[in-house]
Amino acid sequence: MNALIRDAGYRCWLRYEQIRDEKLLEEYRTWCASVVFRPGTPVLCSAKEELIGAIKSLLAVEVALSASPNRDKFIMVGKIGSHSVIDCETGGIEAERLGSQGFVVKTVKKPEYQFILIAAGSDQGILYGVFHFLRLLQMQREIGNLNIHEAPVNPLRMIDHWDNLDGTVERGYAGKSIFYEQNHLRDTGHRIRDYARLLASLGINAVVINNVNVHREETGLIRGRLSMVVKMAGIFRNYGMKVFLSINFAAPIELGDFATADPLDGEVKEWWRKQVQEIYRRIPDFGGFLVKADSEHRPGPFTYHRNHAEGANMLAEVLKPFGGLLIWRCFVYNCTQDWRDQTTDRAKAAYDNFQPLDDLFQENVILQIKNGPMDFQVREPVSPLFGGMERTNQMIELQITQEYTGQQRHLCYLVPQWKEILDFDTYARGEGSTVKKIVSGGLFQRKNAGFAGVANIGDDPNWTGHDLAQANLYGFGRLAWNPDLTAAELAEEWIRMSFSNDQTVIDAISSMLHTSWQIYESYTAPLGIGWMVNPNYHYGPNVDGYEYSRWGTYHRADSKGIGIDRTVKSGTGFAGQYQAKNALMYESSASCPEELLLFFHHVPYFQRLKSGETVIQHIYNTHFDGVEKVTELKEKWLQLQNLIGDERFARVLARLDEQLEHAKEWRDVINSYFYRKTGIPDELGRKIF
Amino acid sequence: MNALIRDAGYRCWLRYEQIRDEKLLEEYRTWCASVVFRPGTPVLCSAKEELIGAIKSLLAVEVALSASPNRDKFIMVGKIGSHSVIDCETGGIEAERLGSQGFVVKTVKKPEYQFILIAAGSDQGILYGVFHFLRLLQMQREIGNLNIHEAPVNPLRMIDHWDNLDGTVERGYAGKSIFYEQNHLRDTGHRIRDYARLLASLGINAVVINNVNVHREETGLIRGRLSMVVKMAGIFRNYGMKVFLSINFAAPIELGDFATADPLDGEVKEWWRKQVQEIYRRIPDFGGFLVKADSEHRPGPFTYHRNHAEGANMLAEVLKPFGGLLIWRCFVYNCTQDWRDQTTDRAKAAYDNFQPLDDLFQENVILQIKNGPMDFQVREPVSPLFGGMERTNQMIELQITQEYTGQQRHLCYLVPQWKEILDFDTYARGEGSTVKKIVSGGLFQRKNAGFAGVANIGDDPNWTGHDLAQANLYGFGRLAWNPDLTAAELAEEWIRMSFSNDQTVIDAISSMLHTSWQIYESYTAPLGIGWMVNPNYHYGPNVDGYEYSRWGTYHRADSKGIGIDRTVKSGTGFAGQYQAKNALMYESSASCPEELLLFFHHVPYFQRLKSGETVIQHIYNTHFDGVEKVTELKEKWLQLQNLIGDERFARVLARLDEQLEHAKEWRDVINSYFYRKTGIPDELGRKIF
Repeated sequence: MNALIRDAGYRCWLRYEQIRDEKLLEEYRTWCASVVFRPGTPVLCSAKEELIGAIKSLLAVEVALSASPNRDKFIMVGKIGSHSVIDCETGGIEAERLGSQGFVVKTVKKPEYQFILIAAGSDQGILYGVFHFLRLLQMQREIGNLNIHEAPVNPLRMIDHWDNLDGTVERGYAGKSIFYEQNHLRDTGHRIRDYARLLASLGINAVVINNVNVHREETGLIRGRLSMVVKMAGIFRNYGMKVFLSINFAAPIELGDFATADPLDGEVKEWWRKQVQEIYRRIPDFGGFLVKADSEHRPGPFTYHRNHAEGANMLAEVLKPFGGLLIWRCFVYNCTQDWRDQTTDRAKAAYDNFQPLDDLFQENVILQIKNGPMDFQVREPVSPLFGGMERTNQMIELQITQEYTGQQRHLCYLVPQWKEILDFDTYARGEGSTVKKIVSGGLFQRKNAGFAGVANIGDDPNWTGHDLAQANLYGFGRLAWNPDLTAAELAEEWIRMSFSNDQTVIDAISSMLHTSWQIYESYTAPLGIGWMVNPNYHYGPNVDGYEYSRWGTYHRADSKGIGIDRTVKSGTGFAGQYQAKNALMYESSASCPEELLLFFHHVPYFQRLKSGETVIQHIYNTHFDGVEKVTELKEKWLQLQNLIGDERFARVLARLDEQLEHAKEWRDVINSYFYRKTGIPDELGRKIF
Repeated sequence: MNALIRDAGYRCWLRYEQIRDEKLLEEYRTWCASVVFRPGTPVLCSAKEELIGAIKSLLAVEVALSASPNRDKFIMVGKIGSHSVIDCETGGIEAERLGSQGFVVKTVKKPEYQFILIAAGSDQGILYGVFHFLRLLQMQREIGNLNIHEAPVNPLRMIDHWDNLDGTVERGYAGKSIFYEQNHLRDTGHRIRDYARLLASLGINAVVINNVNVHREETGLIRGRLSMVVKMAGIFRNYGMKVFLSINFAAPIELGDFATADPLDGEVKEWWRKQVQEIYRRIPDFGGFLVKADSEHRPGPFTYHRNHAEGANMLAEVLKPFGGLLIWRCFVYNCTQDWRDQTTDRAKAAYDNFQPLDDLFQENVILQIKNGPMDFQVREPVSPLFGGMERTNQMIELQITQEYTGQQRHLCYLVPQWKEILDFDTYARGEGSTVKKIVSGGLFQRKNAGFAGVANIGDDPNWTGHDLAQANLYGFGRLAWNPDLTAAELAEEWIRMSFSNDQTVIDAISSMLHTSWQIYESYTAPLGIGWMVNPNYHYGPNVDGYEYSRWGTYHRADSKGIGIDRTVKSGTGFAGQYQAKNALMYESSASCPEELLLFFHHVPYFQRLKSGETVIQHIYNTHFDGVEKVTELKEKWLQLQNLIGDERFARVLARLDEQLEHAKEWRDVINSYFYRKTGIPDELGRKIF
């Protein structure tokens, strides 16, 4: 454990490195050396420990903790309604306005004393307020005139773990699970606690603790292995998080010796009721279930000729008395398609399967929808299910782990991608019907809604393998709290807290982060084509890797042209799943955004883009350019040699070296593939093999 | 075990099914009901048991066994020099002429009695003679006038097992290992014994019992796990076979705690001497070692800047006092090549590495050379090492297991391929310097030489997964005995013994077998191109699967042409590794055999073949044709519905159905790939996707 804590990347954005600026230090100390806080619950204890520990570390000062003001400057923390001084200052604030998880951070100046108030209507709100205040200190912000009121935009802010009990992490690129090892909890309660602190600091309030692909051993988490869940729930509860389980729809068969898992079978439902009862007996604040059903060979209601609403509602009804949620994934498609079949389109599958069921789901069901219609590609359009189901709870599933985006070997800051997705206008209720308004529940007035992100962490000392990949976890959590935050703001927050408040460092890393997604896109997947990767691994170039496969993932490149015709007029009709304005935009190759051109259209290589380049020349140019840009990333990083610690400097440099080598491989394979296929030379005569 | 024996495929070509022809039965019974045989050694006991058991089963007759003639017709079995009757009949035969493993089977007619004599100069010879005689009975041959003298052409007739101690079989397509399970010998001594019987019936005299890739557990076979080898040697010894071990060149490091495995280090050699001493103390007839060194990440002498002769000779010297052989594989090449590099050529590697070492190897070293310069492709030229090293012992390594030839899901009778290879004229000593004369040791008068075949068996009830794949094991063993046997003869022998003497059955299966290799070639690998398979699995079409890889395996197809220029004039120079006459033949695309055109030449798709077809049209035609031919295979098989047992009929039919489906996949993927790449339509307008 000590070795871990010594790793420069372990503490992430909760480094609390001592402030060197003497003037600032003095200023902060006058406020922070005295804290008025009476914690009475585990969550408040967590908040207190964080606050005191952080102040000590940041300011190198002893903190006087007391139940009432006894200096002229202090920090005061407490629940609204718990103390007259607090109530006096929050009198004007409706507790309702803060919601159950919002908070106030405000500087109060009275003649007799001055204090910074951190107050909220709930323990959770106070915890978030404390983390917010500590963020200000870490970013070296002025705190003499604060007046902050924050409440989370999204009710559910969830991290999905794809951890298996054997310790592996599906699509994990940062070592093994921090939770499990050989079907047992790992003896690293401290590490799980530190993870909970990291998540709580972002406002995450829910964690799914096992892989959506629920194998044999994991099926037992709802019964024989329930005590593992009880322990995990205890750790996360102290940081305001509820624990959820991914379940196996066929558990009644695997665990209950039933011959069926038919959701309309009364005995099956009764069996589930008993499991749920026992779970809530031992974990009264248990969050609920996440289900991947009828997807990629997982069992589901289709086996019994039931639809997804029937499958989800049965479980939701069982969870309802306990306040549990039932989260149902929409990642349902034919994964044994014939590549020769050009009419079936995987992109259409989720909408086709779920849209007709609008209005049929219980109130405590939430559909969890991947951001795009395919599968976390570098670039794909937004799923048409957003804005396509007004009477159904929805949440968005984003992938923090970089499955198709460089697997934490390559730098790829995903926040700009997520921002584009969240700001996408579905036009479901006219202009401004953005995805973020749908998944917050706001647009359609749904109570149950939010964000889910697939975790990118493992037991690597720095949690995420690539030190800079921590920015994705940070950005996800903060966006889940407030999707209006900008990618630039989030990068700056993260850099200041994780590395340094030095402007050179901020500028260099910001610039690296902001360009990284487009750089990765440029040398991998031109114009929205996707899937040109090694099957299964999803790393490294393989243009035909998925072309003749059963996964519904094709580029249809021939000697004349490339792309998938998904128009209504002549293609698969996918474009027609959008609201009219978007449908029209995608339908025509003239109005289709160029970055998605090949997702929606099969076009000749000689077609001109707005830049004047042909499609083929665009492919060559972006691939040559991408490698250049990686070189620039590396040069930027080299400027930081003496401005950040050696350990992280060297580690990131090694990854950038690898990225550069590998970007060349991408460039050469992709360019060679298309050159060999088309016979069209590069206009600039660069080397193609 | 009983379930196994009941499987119609378990007994293979030693079925000994009762003869139904009453007249023949009567005739055979008059000879066989009395056997004169005095077995005094384990091998002779095996021969006796086989003979008596087979006669009982074939003829449904009780056998009178005695030490001297006591009827007027009988079978007499014995060693030359052991009995006056035998010596009288073998007086004219030089025991030397039979060699140490030959035999006589001859009908002797005296006034007082008539008998069939099975005699040899050794126990092994007698065993082989008995199996030969039983083959005659099974094939319902006339036995009234026999006069057969046989001696094996090749001194070493070896099966290489790629079995691992954990029970897996590398490139095994017929279940798990029959030898091992979880690092122990399997409790199926009977099955190993039955396997030994099958091999002995073909004349196999050596078995390598573990994978050439020697992992951690297998490294211990020479020491901690030696008792497993002792047991295996005991089983095979009873059938005249010596056991060999694949060893780990770095064993002194892994087992001996040495820091080096340098072959010129005296202590390393001393360490090996001790291991070998102990092995021979416990297994006095131990065969020797097989080594894969400096190949595909296996350790070897290169680590210590020693050459392969230095590596091999050190081990050979240690084995020599005990009569052991050291077999050294020539499968050495750069497996981390850059695909962009068009000058390095994997095909050249074995010759480049070994040819300069001619004359440097000890007398008890044999180089084991894969038939071709690449790796057991459907079609490749013969390795130029054959005929390239006159002063070095050589043996040929053939692959019975169908790694690249359909993995025992597809029918592919390999004997015609092997015949082509064996009959290939190297011109090393002028015309007639065929490969078979080199690997027999005949051409260059080498005592240590022969055949090695990579086993295709596993614990499937029928040994080989595909029932018809048994024909490959049969054919390999028989060719190792006598490479002049024809593919047709071997097929007929095998069908008669394994299925039926019914001419309809013989004709149908013969025809299926004989066309199968070319059929497989036609829908997979046109004109010698190879490697268009899924990486690692080596099953199923993937045209670019190995194109951008590190394995040195490329087709270099672009929009204009395809193939690898391996000429001396403009290519990698591989063609120049052959003796002049062959070098000239391969150098020009006009004289290069068309089935190897793309192996040696990069040609335009519009180049005309002798048939008048263009190369591209040839690709389309063969792929369409291949599927048609598989349909014909299936039709042929369907004719046998009531002529062979239901179990094997159904099993083979299922495989043919799968082959047909999969041949279509090959056809469509390959044709689509080339159509999309070239834009050249099929002249016949058939469907390409």
